[in-house]
Amino acid sequence: MAKNAAKASPFAPVQLPDMPAVPGVRLAACEAAIRYRNRRDLMLAVLAPGTTAAGLLTRSKTASAPVLWCRQCLAHGNARALVINSGNANAFTGKKGMEAARITAQAAARAVGCTPQEVYLSSTGVIGEPLDASKFAHLLDGLAQAARADGWEEAARAIMTTDTFPKLATRRLRLGSADVVINGFAKGAGMIAPDLATMLVNIFTDAPIAHSVLQAMLAAGADKTFNCITIDSDTSTSDTVLLFATGHAAARGAPLIEEAASPEGQRFAAALSDLMRELAVAVVRDGEGLSKFVTIEVAGAESDGAARRIGFSIANSPLVKTAIAGEDANWGRVVMAVGKAGEAADRDRLSIAFGDIVVAEAGERASTYDEETLTSYMRGREITIRVDLGLGGGRATVWTCDLTHDYISINADYRS
Amino acid sequence: MAKNAAKASPFAPVQLPDMPAVPGVRLAACEAAIRYRNRRDLMLAVLAPGTTAAGLLTRSKTASAPVLWCRQCLAHGNARALVINSGNANAFTGKKGMEAARITAQAAARAVGCTPQEVYLSSTGVIGEPLDASKFAHLLDGLAQAARADGWEEAARAIMTTDTFPKLATRRLRLGSADVVINGFAKGAGMIAPDLATMLVNIFTDAPIAHSVLQAMLAAGADKTFNCITIDSDTSTSDTVLLFATGHAAARGAPLIEEAASPEGQRFAAALSDLMRELAVAVVRDGEGLSKFVTIEVAGAESDGAARRIGFSIANSPLVKTAIAGEDANWGRVVMAVGKAGEAADRDRLSIAFGDIVVAEAGERASTYDEETLTSYMRGREITIRVDLGLGGGRATVWTCDLTHDYISINADYRS
Repeated sequence: MAKNAAKASPFAPVQLPDMPAVPGVRLAACEAAIRYRNRRDLMLAVLAPGTTAAGLLTRSKTASAPVLWCRQCLAHGNARALVINSGNANAFTGKKGMEAARITAQAAARAVGCTPQEVYLSSTGVIGEPLDASKFAHLLDGLAQAARADGWEEAARAIMTTDTFPKLATRRLRLGSADVVINGFAKGAGMIAPDLATMLVNIFTDAPIAHSVLQAMLAAGADKTFNCITIDSDTSTSDTVLLFATGHAAARGAPLIEEAASPEGQRFAAALSDLMRELAVAVVRDGEGLSKFVTIEVAGAESDGAARRIGFSIANSPLVKTAIAGEDANWGRVVMAVGKAGEAADRDRLSIAFGDIVVAEAGERASTYDEETLTSYMRGREITIRVDLGLGGGRATVWTCDLTHDYISINADYRS
Repeated sequence: MAKNAAKASPFAPVQLPDMPAVPGVRLAACEAAIRYRNRRDLMLAVLAPGTTAAGLLTRSKTASAPVLWCRQCLAHGNARALVINSGNANAFTGKKGMEAARITAQAAARAVGCTPQEVYLSSTGVIGEPLDASKFAHLLDGLAQAARADGWEEAARAIMTTDTFPKLATRRLRLGSADVVINGFAKGAGMIAPDLATMLVNIFTDAPIAHSVLQAMLAAGADKTFNCITIDSDTSTSDTVLLFATGHAAARGAPLIEEAASPEGQRFAAALSDLMRELAVAVVRDGEGLSKFVTIEVAGAESDGAARRIGFSIANSPLVKTAIAGEDANWGRVVMAVGKAGEAADRDRLSIAFGDIVVAEAGERASTYDEETLTSYMRGREITIRVDLGLGGGRATVWTCDLTHDYISINADYRS
């Protein structure tokens, strides 16, 4: 619906990355006509026996049925399949919602040859609409047969809702005598705010990693990436970040990572975190209706946590976001947002810069302030706001986008 | 600027209330050309000797110079004058900002015949722009001479920024053998969110009230009125609610109110709170770019505080606000906003209604759900969203408005 009408983000990549295979992972997608027409809306990833999973789920008190389902699966961490549909979030659908999840997992389990408890699920789309799983569960057999090692783009496209481009990223690193791969894809666009994932993210690797280490690495990576982005301050009922490790690289000589602090563990974590940042930024760069991508760097706060809260106070301020949309370097609204964050701030120590242009310092407008230089900076597509509290060593980076007429258009008639 | 361009709120009153005199209060306003042209932007209220003041000030850590000035005045509570300018907030203007406040207070003190410490100040408008008080301080003499008992509308208009109508309210009640009056006026429109006043509100009465009681009554009234409204979740650097009591009704037989719990105290507090609610609602009804006025009633929460936080989570959600703008009864987004509030919620006990139409109960869409009935309700100009958590006795009412294209237009070019 609105999805098809929305114009592409100005940050849509000219070319999608070339995704290598991840040994042990095959993917396919198809048209299930759950809500959208003439596009794929159902995907299946088939995972080799021995795959383990880590995950982060929304903290929403009205979490969707697939989120509750995944919570059970993550308790043991064994994984053989992942099923995602778009068009319907299967959230706030009562006991029927859990039943739809069960039907889907059972069908996937039969198709793949595993237990339903080894099938991970995500659903994204409208909230509150009953999801009739019997209408698409029979398609999973065909998907399992069609699944291919190169089905990444197809899968990434199948989970899109108001996204205007698929988000894919890949990393390769050497572990022992083997090259291992990390592939990921994500969907986002609206209802994006911190507190865990706030979007659907799926990451796959063939590196052999102990389950507890996998979970710790995912959580640490998210803290600096998916938990540092916001589009509209709204937290979804369905946010899910999953990381699957098939371990297939062990056969090629990759050592088992049993400790995050080991040299291999650190190198893998760095590559993982780098890929997560790329996907997190891609989600923001496809923020609903955006015209500008905004990086907010906060330094000099009392703690990293304080810096992040101040960063989000700026990033979530409708007045800051509309000013940026209007190419207005309205740093007074940044002052306002710092002031309302509830964290320690001292007017006379605060300094604010747009890009490298200092606009405010020592409690007032900078003496070098020049409206024209600033205005020219604001015409750029990528805006960086730098805030230094001058109080301590706390720092954080938060990514967001502007708030435009297109955001209103997209969201004023998404459902109907 | 944008102010003049913005079209009037659909909720602008057809007729302003007839404001009686408040014995001991005189007002005047004039054109000081601080930023706006061809309109009054500076007002003075002259208060009779013996007037006491109560006040609530923004909790922003980057509060404006006039807020810091008022904080000092409120420590003693004696009041002889109130000066407000629009067009410039005198916020984040460093030491020069405090100097501008001092110059203004000194000029008003000379004009009125009091000490600068008895002059209360507010400024509203652009943040970060130095305010040159020497350009308008000389006008205060003329204002003091021109001040009249019927200058209410003039004063209310002089403090407007992006407001599209002046907000005035009046109440009259019998205390002992005297009729006493409470008059108030406010400005708001943008940067409105809870945590104290979040706007400029000025209330005047001739009732004789002890200073400590005055402050307690103001705080209690704000808790259910000004602290229950939000337009865009942004908290201003300049929010100020002031209540002045001249005590002149004592000469006509009104008893001194020395205890809030006394029968007279309770009756005065009820009238005051009623007037405050009228002004708070008027501020929302002039929310920037609004097309619909929204009341959110939360019941069944674990506590009143939890109910209010859930109410604000709904009221501040851009996705809920844009859905209302689109006349879409997207109750799934209400579920999302309840879920992200961080308060206890149980999907299977939650019920949601739009007006009297139940849309969700027992964890899923209501069996009586009818899209057409709902759509017709959403076409109305006043929308009520009712949420019952089914957990306890906590309840709260929060007022807000929708998020429209006009909000973006107004705020994307307010400054420049």
